[in-house]
Order: sequence, then C-alpha cells, then structure tokens
Amino acid sequence: MSDRVRAVRIRDCEIGGPELVVMAGPCAIESRDQIFQAAEVVARSGARFLRGGAFKVRTSPSSFQGLGWEGWRLLREAADANGLLTVSEILDEGQIGEARRHVDFAQVGSRNMQNVPLLKAIGRSRMPVMLKRGFGCTIDEWVHAAEYILREGNQDVVMCERGIRTFETATRFTLDVAAVPIAKARLSLPVVVDPSHAAGTREWVESLTLCGVACGADGLLIETHPDPAKALSDGPQAVVLSDFPALMEKARRVAEALGRTVPIGPRVGVA
Amino acid sequence: MSDRVRAVRIRDCEIGGPELVVMAGPCAIESRDQIFQAAEVVARSGARFLRGGAFKVRTSPSSFQGLGWEGWRLLREAADANGLLTVSEILDEGQIGEARRHVDFAQVGSRNMQNVPLLKAIGRSRMPVMLKRGFGCTIDEWVHAAEYILREGNQDVVMCERGIRTFETATRFTLDVAAVPIAKARLSLPVVVDPSHAAGTREWVESLTLCGVACGADGLLIETHPDPAKALSDGPQAVVLSDFPALMEKARRVAEALGRTVPIGPRVGVA
Amino acid sequence: MSDRVRAVRIRDCEIGGPELVVMAGPCAIESRDQIFQAAEVVARSGARFLRGGAFKVRTSPSSFQGLGWEGWRLLREAADANGLLTVSEILDEGQIGEARRHVDFAQVGSRNMQNVPLLKAIGRSRMPVMLKRGFGCTIDEWVHAAEYILREGNQDVVMCERGIRTFETATRFTLDVAAVPIAKARLSLPVVVDPSHAAGTREWVESLTLCGVACGADGLLIETHPDPAKALSDGPQAVVLSDFPALMEKARRVAEALGRTVPIGPRVGVA
Amino acid sequence: MSDRVRAVRIRDCEIGGPELVVMAGPCAIESRDQIFQAAEVVARSGARFLRGGAFKVRTSPSSFQGLGWEGWRLLREAADANGLLTVSEILDEGQIGEARRHVDFAQVGSRNMQNVPLLKAIGRSRMPVMLKRGFGCTIDEWVHAAEYILREGNQDVVMCERGIRTFETATRFTLDVAAVPIAKARLSLPVVVDPSHAAGTREWVESLTLCGVACGADGLLIETHPDPAKALSDGPQAVVLSDFPALMEKARRVAEALGRTVPIGPRVGVA
Repeated sequence: MSDRVRAVRIRDCEIGGPELVVMAGPCAIESRDQIFQAAEVVARSGARFLRGGAFKVRTSPSSFQGLGWEGWRLLREAADANGLLTVSEILDEGQIGEARRHVDFAQVGSRNMQNVPLLKAIGRSRMPVMLKRGFGCTIDEWVHAAEYILREGNQDVVMCERGIRTFETATRFTLDVAAVPIAKARLSLPVVVDPSHAAGTREWVESLTLCGVACGADGLLIETHPDPAKALSDGPQAVVLSDFPALMEKARRVAEALGRTVPIGPRVGVA
Repeated sequence: MSDRVRAVRIRDCEIGGPELVVMAGPCAIESRDQIFQAAEVVARSGARFLRGGAFKVRTSPSSFQGLGWEGWRLLREAADANGLLTVSEILDEGQIGEARRHVDFAQVGSRNMQNVPLLKAIGRSRMPVMLKRGFGCTIDEWVHAAEYILREGNQDVVMCERGIRTFETATRFTLDVAAVPIAKARLSLPVVVDPSHAAGTREWVESLTLCGVACGADGLLIETHPDPAKALSDGPQAVVLSDFPALMEKARRVAEALGRTVPIGPRVGVA
Repeated sequence: MSDRVRAVRIRDCEIGGPELVVMAGPCAIESRDQIFQAAEVVARSGARFLRGGAFKVRTSPSSFQGLGWEGWRLLREAADANGLLTVSEILDEGQIGEARRHVDFAQVGSRNMQNVPLLKAIGRSRMPVMLKRGFGCTIDEWVHAAEYILREGNQDVVMCERGIRTFETATRFTLDVAAVPIAKARLSLPVVVDPSHAAGTREWVESLTLCGVACGADGLLIETHPDPAKALSDGPQAVVLSDFPALMEKARRVAEALGRTVPIGPRVGVA
Repeated sequence: MSDRVRAVRIRDCEIGGPELVVMAGPCAIESRDQIFQAAEVVARSGARFLRGGAFKVRTSPSSFQGLGWEGWRLLREAADANGLLTVSEILDEGQIGEARRHVDFAQVGSRNMQNVPLLKAIGRSRMPVMLKRGFGCTIDEWVHAAEYILREGNQDVVMCERGIRTFETATRFTLDVAAVPIAKARLSLPVVVDPSHAAGTREWVESLTLCGVACGADGLLIETHPDPAKALSDGPQAVVLSDFPALMEKARRVAEALGRTVPIGPRVGVA
C-alpha cells in the first residue's frame, strides 16, 4: 500500500518509504539519565527517532506537566549522542521558535487535533508534523484536520492512529487498525501507529505493535522507560526498556514478511 | 439540586439560581440583519443571552470560518439594543483582549476542552466562562478541564453538556442527560445544556430542550436562525426563529413544574 | 407527539394515550413478602403495572437467575391484590404458554432484541409486548426488530428505550432520550423509558425519570425495592421503595406541564 | 501466546495449536453451484473449514433469511467433496439435532451472545462451538457468556472477535485486536478473528486479516463469494473468490514470521 503514499523526508529519514520507521522513548522526559538510557537502547534496536514530551497535556492539572525547555535540550542532546532524530509535542504557536532548535518532527497531540489556530501555525511553520488522531474523532474529521495544515503550504504531514474511545475498558483506547489503510487511501500521506496509548497496559503493547506493522503502518511510536514503576507519566503502558530489543525483533520479522525493512543497530554519526 | 450549586453572576444575571437562563441565537453571526432579527425574538421570548460565533472552529477548512472581529461588534450591538448579554466562543489567548469589550460570557468549545494553554489563559483572564464538554471526553475529564481554569483563580465557570459521540447516527451526538446532575455533584458549578448540537436536526431539539430542563440544567444554549435554509453553519439544527417563542413557552412550563422560573418578555434597558 | 401514536390497550390500560403509564417493582421477584410490599406502594403511587423478573438473564452464570414459575405466580398474586397489571420478561418460546396465565405484558429484554426466533414466537402469540432496545443497537435496528414481531400479525408492540453503551462509565448506560421521539416518528408505536438501567445508581434515577417524561415517553419502567442493599439483582439502581411516592409526584408535575396525566392512588378492584 | 491456550480438537483439526486455522466461504449458502465453487477454492488455498449460513439472523425481516435445512445439506456435501470441515450458525435449540449431521463446528452469532437458553443448550449438546463476541459487549461479558457454555460441561469453546460498535462509520465495526490476547489471558481458550464483518467493505479485509494473524489469533473466519455483486447477504464485504488465494498467501507469510503454519493445498480424502 505504501506505493500510494508520498513519503515525508526528515533529514536522512524517509517516512512512507520501504523502511518501517520506529520512534521510541519515554512519555515524558524526566531526567538526563533517563533520556540517555532510553536513547541508547532504542538506537541500538533500530529506532530512528527518540520521542519524549517536554510539555505534557495531562488530564488533571495536579499531574506532572513536563520539564519544559530543559526537557527539549536533554532530548536533543540524548538523540544527537545516539544518532537519532527527535519527535516531541508542541502545544501552542509560542513554542515553535524554540522547537525548531530541538525538535526535528513536531507532534500535534490527540487532544489538539481540532485546535485550529495550532494547526494553522504548524502549517505556516513548515515543520514536518505528526498529526495524532483525536480519540473522539472520526477518520473524516482527522483528514479535515490535516487539510488545515496542508492548506498553509506544509506538505510534510504524517498521520498517527493512536486508538479511539469506545465502551471497552479492558484497554485504555481501542486501536482502530482499519484507519491506517483508510487514511492512506484518503490522503496519500504516511500513517504511523502508536500502540502504547491504545493498550494502556504494557502487557498488550506487543500485540498492538505487530498489528500496526500488519495493517501497513509506515512507522511506530512506542513508549519505553528504563523503570516504568517510577515513571511520572503513563508508566503502566511503557515497555520496560530491557524488553524493547525483543519487541523490535518481532516487529522486524513481521515487517520483513510484508516486504519492509527495519534497520539493525545504532546509527551514531549518520544522522 | 440547584441548592448545591454556587451561582455564577454575569452583570445582572445569575446562572445557578432559581432562574433558568436561556442563551439563544445563530451558530455563526452572518450579517447585521440576521443577528438583529435573532436578538429581537429571543429577547422577547425570555432569553437573557444572545449567542453567536465570530470565530468558528469548523471540521473542514473549506467551511465558513466566521466574520471575525466584525462579528463580535455586531453581536454586542444587537444584544445591547435588546437588553441581552452576549456569549461567544474564544479560540485562543490572543482574542481575550478584544473579547472583553464585546463578550460578557466566554465560551470554550467542545474541540478545545483539553486545550490546556487556552484553559489557563481563560483562567488568568477572570472572564466568566462556559466550558463545553468535549464530545469524546468523559465527565471525569471534563471536571479536570474545569480545574485547569479554577486553579488560575477564576471561579466563574459554568459547565455545558452538549452531547457525546456514540454509535447512534440518527442524531449528531447523544445528549448525556445524566451528566448534568453528576457534574453538579462533582463540582458544585452550574451546568447548562445545549440541545442543538446533540440533536443535529431541528426536529428533535424540542425534546432535548425539555430534557435539559428536566435533568436540572441551570440554563439552555439554543441555536435559532431567521432562515436556517440559508445559514452558513449548522443550519439543519437551528430552530426556525418564528418557532422559538413556542419552544420557550414549553420549556417555561416544565421549568415551573420543577420550581424554576423563566422570565417573560424583553428586558431592554435592564442589562 | 402522542397524537401520532397508535395506542396499545392492555386490559383497562392504554399505553400511548393521554395517561403516562408507570410500571414499577423490583428487578427480580425474590419472595412473597418483597413483591407484596412493592406492589402495595407502587399501586398507591399511581403505577398501573407491577414489574418483576422470574427468569433473569444475568451477565454471569454465577449470579441469581430468578425464582422461575413460582416467581410469576407471586407476581400475579401481588398485582391482583393491588389492582395492578403485570409485566415480565420472557426468554424463550417455551415460556409463552405459562406466561399467558400470569403476565399481562411480555417483555423482550435488551440482550434478546435480535433473537429472531423469540421475536417471531412473541409475534405469533399475539401477547402485548414491550421490546427493549439492545444496548449496542441503533434505532434503525430496533425498528427492524419490531418489524419481526409486527409481521407475524402482532400489532401490540411498545418500544422501550433503556440506555445505550457508550464510553462514559459514570452511569451504567447512556439514556438516549432522542430515541423516544425518533422511534415514534419511525413506527407510530408507543415508547416508554427505563431510567433505572441507564442510571445504574439510584442517585441519578430521578433526573432520568423526569427526562423520560420530558422527551415524550408514553410510560416509565422503574426499579424499586423495599431494601435495595439486600437485593439479589441490580440493587444499586433500585429506588428505595419509601422514596418512590415522592419520585412519582415529581414525574406527575412534569407530565401535567406537558398535558399528560398520572393517576393518583390505588386502583384495587379496577383491573 | 498460544502455549497458554488449551486447543480444541474438531475431527483431525486442532484450533489453538501451531496451525493457523482458516475458515472461509460465503456469508449465506445460496446455491449448490455457489457453495461448491467456494469450497474448491478455499480448500486449495489452505482453509480447513467451509463456512456458510443456512439460517440467517438479518437485521430486517425483509432480507434473505437463508436456505434452511437444504443449505446445511449443500454445505456438508461441498465440504466433504473438498476435504473440508463445516462451520455454521445455530439459532435455537431445536436446530441442534439436525446440525449434528451437517455441522462440525457450531457458531453462536454476535446477536445471540447473551441468549442464555441457547448458550446452555449448546453447552449440553457438547458440540464444538465458536462464540462470537456481541458487537455491543465488553470482553468481560463475552468471557461470562463462554462460562454459560463451559458450566454445562462443554469445554470445546473457541472465541471469535468480530468487531465492536463504535462511533467510526468508515468501517462497519471496529476490530478490537487487543481483545484477542486479553480473552486468551482470561480464559485459556483459542480465539479466532473475523475480519469481514469488522471491515464491512472488502477493500479493508486484507489489512484486518493480517492484523488478526499479528495479534495472535488461532484462526481466521473470512467471507468470500464467487460473485459478490450478486450475493444475497453481505456482498460488499466478501472477498472475491479469485482473490482469496493471494490473501491467504499474505496471511501465511505473516503467520510464518510469528512461528505458525498455514497448510498449503487441498486436503481431499483427509477429513
């Protein structure tokens, strides 16, 4: 299906081409030690992007809200030291200037999918952007949200399916795997899958990761943490960092069965 | 149930007291003529607020996006001429300064319920605010969103139930009537009901309006338009303006059966 | 709206006429004492039907499954002693013969809404029947299910909205109040509302009861129990029997505001 | 994950072992020619079961309701001629006697998941049974429904995930892929996936089929028809029979990447 997609290039990486692009790291950047540990392991396992939030949109104002600018500096440093690119969420237009220095790939979060001023600002910025699907939004609304960005002249848009809200409570959200081929057919843009937020519990992340590959996603966005029990955000759904290489190995086998590749080993010096 | 609620006062109007406060008008302000016609009829029927959007968040970027600042000026003028207060949606922090001059009651729309920078800015502004429930959000998340505003020192928060997304497609959304008493029990803030967006079709607006009164809402937010067939936004769900007085009369009867009042007639010169 | 409905007559009672018909009683018939206590209070408050399950469809096979035939005999006796009619769920065709002796109004439960052999058997039986909406079913599917009964020549069908499954977990189900006028418009059959299963907690039953009246329902189906803490089924959602008269009084006021009546006092000797 | 599952044996076939068991055929048996054509192709592609409905539960009574007993006779004949086993839906207890002669694997449909008399009858029959998940039911309720069968002494239960009802309308249902590992963890029974009903349109069946394999399903239930445009039931979601071998080849590659097998070629004379 990827032949119908116009790939998005971010530095030396192409999303929507033959490679399955893996983005991994903690939900929130918490400390230098944490993000460097994560970067080292995910790079070694074939990931291309280090993920990590510096400005967190949390359901409750009492929850940890992120390290802010300092978080982005640490993310950049850890990524650079391991040959990785960076992906991180931007909450409002005022953050874009600083983001350009630290973030290679901007993320619009699920709760902001219909925040039109933000979509337009990201559009004007021309930063490559990953548009997460709103958990209460239809595929049709998600496509229209992308059009707000595209209309401003920014064509570097990657869609991200991360689960929708349904009556089932055994998982945090229900991963809508069919949305991947449908969004591709509608927009010809690359689509990646976030298995972590859908699962809500690490026990089910492996199955959803493999489904992401199987439904034709062009990439994966996975949360992993050196010590999830101590995570300040979304610990229960983070894959234990020491288990991450085995997960990647399984994903690679399924990807290869479908004619896609996942790079092996670290890429220090390449990016 | 209203005795458990701390009322919010906006000029001479109290939401959460014995009066059922009605806010009505078009979805979008389209012209001077349109908004003045609406203002005259809704004032005469007992409404206290004139509603109308100047900056519209539309699903598609191709749809009408509102008249902008000129819209707010017309809204203010039409309201003042008919003894009404104004309620209108604010999309980002940059609009707050101008809003203070034209808008008595700020609205945070459903799509922005978890736009944290906006919630905080509204909190700092101390403008009375109506927080619409995100159509994909739980009551629990809605309560947490209100806390983002309250924490900034703004206690003048009114909640608005406007329907949630379900599998049923016969209506645009499903009005979650139980959310009204539940939100009151959780927050002790007034709660109003928007029957128009839930219905999606004017045919069902009357039933949902009466349910709003029956479930204990402290107010109603109703879309009405002089000529819905020509409306630039949400025409199908707008009550025809000439039918609005009869709708109000029914709502008044149910309100009175439950010990609440709805004012009769225009209030020019009072506000 | 009731003028568009063809009323269903069950003995001396008409559902779909000017009277709001109340059906009340415990979820499950548990003992002679329990059902007689319930019958006495609900009759005194203006209810016309005594409800009570003898054959319960429970989610888990470990839960109480009902008293069976003995339950129906007790239901009949308690109803007759208090001038009430009876309504109870039928699970399969084999129960219809016995049901004719004890049950005036057959109920097809939510979980059986698409049990076609049962729908056809009820259709052939010509028993007046209340068809509950499947909690995962659209209004369209509910209408089609009614057609399975109507096609067999049984026109005495009353629809019952009892809440649908949504992502909201603060209530057991979400009462779809708009379904009442929509189903009437589609089928011209009477529609009643069950506020108890939607609420799931007695705290919210009053609000949903009043919404049922407000949206134009032709009747109400309410669970009430002399001692809900000891109930063998659905105790948390049962209105405490001693609170039932006050609930009815509120419902009567809203009904009267909308031009409908609820009878006052017991009707012993009338049925 | 399959090591945690107790396999169910049906004649020479084991569901829950290393083989991914494919069941395929038309939604409804329509004619001798149709079912024989389907049987020949699915057998040749590695399927083990021929599926086909003789008694259809249709949403509307106006739709085609199936060929009845004659359907089952044709299914048996076509399966025997091609070395296949048979799977077909049973609607009520009265069909079980005849089913034993023609149906190797009984199916309880989604609309009957909580039809307790049917679950108990299937339990007493000791027929191997596939329990489809109710489209409005939680995993927890599905597990409890299985317990109604298991309690009657029938341990040969296979679970089938077939999509749940959500707000998304681009597909007919949303395939809940996480339900596969979760149901296995809860019950230690095999779980199969039906991609056809979830997709609703054949265009998305391939992606959902591969997801079924990727999430660890022990089998697949796929609708295919020689001429879907003329199908009397669910034509839009049926894979064109001539495309079925290529679909199977893709499924086989993913299965093998995950350490499972799919047999190649026909098995005439084996069953």
